[in-house]
Amino acid sequence: MNYKMMGRFIGKILMVEAVFMVPAMLISLYEGEFAPVRAFMWTLAAIVLVAGLLMWLCRGPKNKFYAKEGLACVGISWIVMSLLGCLPFFISGVIPDFVDAFFEIVSGFTTTGASILPEVESLPKGILYWRSFSHWLGGMGVLVFLLAVSSMGGGDNGYTMHLLRAESPGPNVGKLVPKMRKTASILYLIYVLITILDVFFLMLGKMPLFEAVCTAFGTVGTGGFGIKNNSMAGYSPYIQNVCTVFMFLCGVNFTCFYLLLIRQVKNVFRDEELRMYLGVAAASILVITLNLRGFYDTFSETLRHAAFQVSTIMTTTGFATTDYELWPGLSKAILLALMIIGASAGSTGGGFKCGRALLVLKSLRRSVQQIVHPQKVQVVRVNGQPIDEKVLQNTNAYLAAYAIVIVASFLLISVDGFSITTNLSAVLACFNNIGPGFEMVGPTSNYAAFGTFSKLVLALDMLAGRLEIFPILILFSRTTWAHR
Amino acid sequence: MNYKMMGRFIGKILMVEAVFMVPAMLISLYEGEFAPVRAFMWTLAAIVLVAGLLMWLCRGPKNKFYAKEGLACVGISWIVMSLLGCLPFFISGVIPDFVDAFFEIVSGFTTTGASILPEVESLPKGILYWRSFSHWLGGMGVLVFLLAVSSMGGGDNGYTMHLLRAESPGPNVGKLVPKMRKTASILYLIYVLITILDVFFLMLGKMPLFEAVCTAFGTVGTGGFGIKNNSMAGYSPYIQNVCTVFMFLCGVNFTCFYLLLIRQVKNVFRDEELRMYLGVAAASILVITLNLRGFYDTFSETLRHAAFQVSTIMTTTGFATTDYELWPGLSKAILLALMIIGASAGSTGGGFKCGRALLVLKSLRRSVQQIVHPQKVQVVRVNGQPIDEKVLQNTNAYLAAYAIVIVASFLLISVDGFSITTNLSAVLACFNNIGPGFEMVGPTSNYAAFGTFSKLVLALDMLAGRLEIFPILILFSRTTWAHR
Repeated sequence: MNYKMMGRFIGKILMVEAVFMVPAMLISLYEGEFAPVRAFMWTLAAIVLVAGLLMWLCRGPKNKFYAKEGLACVGISWIVMSLLGCLPFFISGVIPDFVDAFFEIVSGFTTTGASILPEVESLPKGILYWRSFSHWLGGMGVLVFLLAVSSMGGGDNGYTMHLLRAESPGPNVGKLVPKMRKTASILYLIYVLITILDVFFLMLGKMPLFEAVCTAFGTVGTGGFGIKNNSMAGYSPYIQNVCTVFMFLCGVNFTCFYLLLIRQVKNVFRDEELRMYLGVAAASILVITLNLRGFYDTFSETLRHAAFQVSTIMTTTGFATTDYELWPGLSKAILLALMIIGASAGSTGGGFKCGRALLVLKSLRRSVQQIVHPQKVQVVRVNGQPIDEKVLQNTNAYLAAYAIVIVASFLLISVDGFSITTNLSAVLACFNNIGPGFEMVGPTSNYAAFGTFSKLVLALDMLAGRLEIFPILILFSRTTWAHR
Repeated sequence: MNYKMMGRFIGKILMVEAVFMVPAMLISLYEGEFAPVRAFMWTLAAIVLVAGLLMWLCRGPKNKFYAKEGLACVGISWIVMSLLGCLPFFISGVIPDFVDAFFEIVSGFTTTGASILPEVESLPKGILYWRSFSHWLGGMGVLVFLLAVSSMGGGDNGYTMHLLRAESPGPNVGKLVPKMRKTASILYLIYVLITILDVFFLMLGKMPLFEAVCTAFGTVGTGGFGIKNNSMAGYSPYIQNVCTVFMFLCGVNFTCFYLLLIRQVKNVFRDEELRMYLGVAAASILVITLNLRGFYDTFSETLRHAAFQVSTIMTTTGFATTDYELWPGLSKAILLALMIIGASAGSTGGGFKCGRALLVLKSLRRSVQQIVHPQKVQVVRVNGQPIDEKVLQNTNAYLAAYAIVIVASFLLISVDGFSITTNLSAVLACFNNIGPGFEMVGPTSNYAAFGTFSKLVLALDMLAGRLEIFPILILFSRTTWAHR
């Protein structure tokens, strides 16, 4: 392992975190929130100290950096970033238990939105801002940000590619343009644009600026931390619909937006993953709306709630406008299935991803066709392009890892003795970065009742889900740490 | 498609079914049960007629037979066998609804043991016998039986191999001896021996002959249809323990018994799948026993119930000695996980199979190692032997198919509006051929409340689970039926 490069790299990541924590501190200062200001200052001091030490201790020449270092580096930096990022919650006394504070910030960075807080409206503004902002930073990825703004070792070497691949969701990392740095910049540019648009449309609905910014962070990062105790239920239908649309947009592969920007409109709507994403969402909204007949007063209200909940679950955001726990079995079953499928690859959303589901379905179809015509060479194609066998193998390995993590986590958190639906949906909601699940972790409830051990398991699940398993899994493998 | 050979083959299968139905009719005759005798006679007439017609219409020379025909043939013959096999229930009026009768016999042949009957003690003896016997026939497989007793086209060609592969569970079909026919005979010989031993030990515990035979069918076939309303709860601890042991034995790969018979004891205990099977069972029993402290009066009672329920769920039998619904969350979670893993490949048990889980785990470990050492060629080994990449690919394809069937079935049966745990455990319990699940389909309950559509979905799940998906999946593929 190239510990020196890894150390320097983690140091840089922490500096980014520190820079982004300053606005939260300023808000607390402006609002005259004494304890949070002090907490942010101590935290900033700690981050800068750790980052500085790392960068000084690990100074040295640049040298080779392999895939395993890239993955391990991403895994470790997210964990360290969370350990330090939760300090404002802990030091300010807002979340007196350290594991709870860690759970909350991991939930933030991973855009999960699962909370241990029973209520949020009384929280200091600076803390609320930092909590919501963690979604925005984690949504597109802090490494992608670093790639966009710094030279990172000067030039497009495998180094940056390994890192971007480790942090970006999806079976295939698409370079928008030949240079990685430019790709990262374009992604963040689109991301910032969508955020500004979201704030604009929310403020059109008479939402105050601070609320609009925090809500936009939760929406565009597909996170789900709200600033109201009843999530989005108290807002006007207009604001709810704005959220539905923006959550849904952020579940789309950002490559599509880039193609729109460079006016390749045709290619966007030919994209099979986008079609699947749209198709699954539309079908789910339709069936749920029919299934909810008579549940709400009007058809438009039913449609609004159905669309909002499908959008929030499928994009793995986790806001809520209504208690879907009370919905009939079929609607709940559809939401549970959507929890697994998730959003598109290359979006800020989590889950297994539509693109992967498409590959799994297509390779299963090929397996059947191979039985029928064993002599014929069958190629799996997406968007007309043949898919490399290596990608198919990786997708199947990912499915296996996905299934194993779910079963193992389900068993581990069952020590707390809650119901099967609670435990299973808690694992699915955390691992797929959604937030609310069913029963004890339903949309009107929170994760406070779980024990410390279960909270740590769920926090690791969130990280594994956000980073697509391998950056976390690799940290647990002996081979990774063995000397050659 | 070679329809003629398929037709002849299905005809032969039906003749086997008819022959095995005769004892049930004789029991009804002996007990003076009028309606069942008439029902069996009509059914026998129908089967013989259909079989005869098929064999006459499809007469002709032998010719080539491919994998797809083998799979489709197995899928169709199990469906036809069930359509005719349920007639005694339906005609005798014991189960007045045809879909219910079909569900019940599919549950029997697939060794699931899921029932729609609220009580069984009042049923006619002949019907009870046929219901339990269906487990025995389905456990080892009717095609394997046919291979064992008939020449099947004279000689060891691909034909018999394709058929055996389609009906036998597990990622790898092991030929015990070079000749397929002899392999099939040895398997049935071991099967009969275990059944006789089970009857013997049950009768030692003062169980009447008829009960002992029916219980042995349910145990050795890992089926789970009981002849008492409270399943095994009313029997003595001795009898319950006999069942625990025999269920567990029948979840072992039968190749191990063959190796014991030819005195290759060392090879048996070196088998990694057997070790995993033993290890998972022992660990589960241990944790559940600890988790159940204070739940039963004595330690030995706790251990007995824990061992019985682990054995019954892991081998996918589905008997019960206690209502595990009342157990604490951790114990229930372990049972749910065991439902998925299942028994060993090459046993009469169902589920994903320990052997496959082993391959999935090992290939996941390899994926991690390949990230760490991308330049090193890594081979997955089981029992020291390198595993062919094709087998690994098929195992991953199986996992994908497995996951897709579960999610799709879960969504389909949710139309009935029951709870998530009910629906999910019903799908797992049927697809993995277990029988009882949780909540509405728990060990003290049954499947009667589901609608006709859901019952058909669950019946297809049972068949897909027993035949390992592809023989059923292939029937739904357009490619299978397309003319070249």
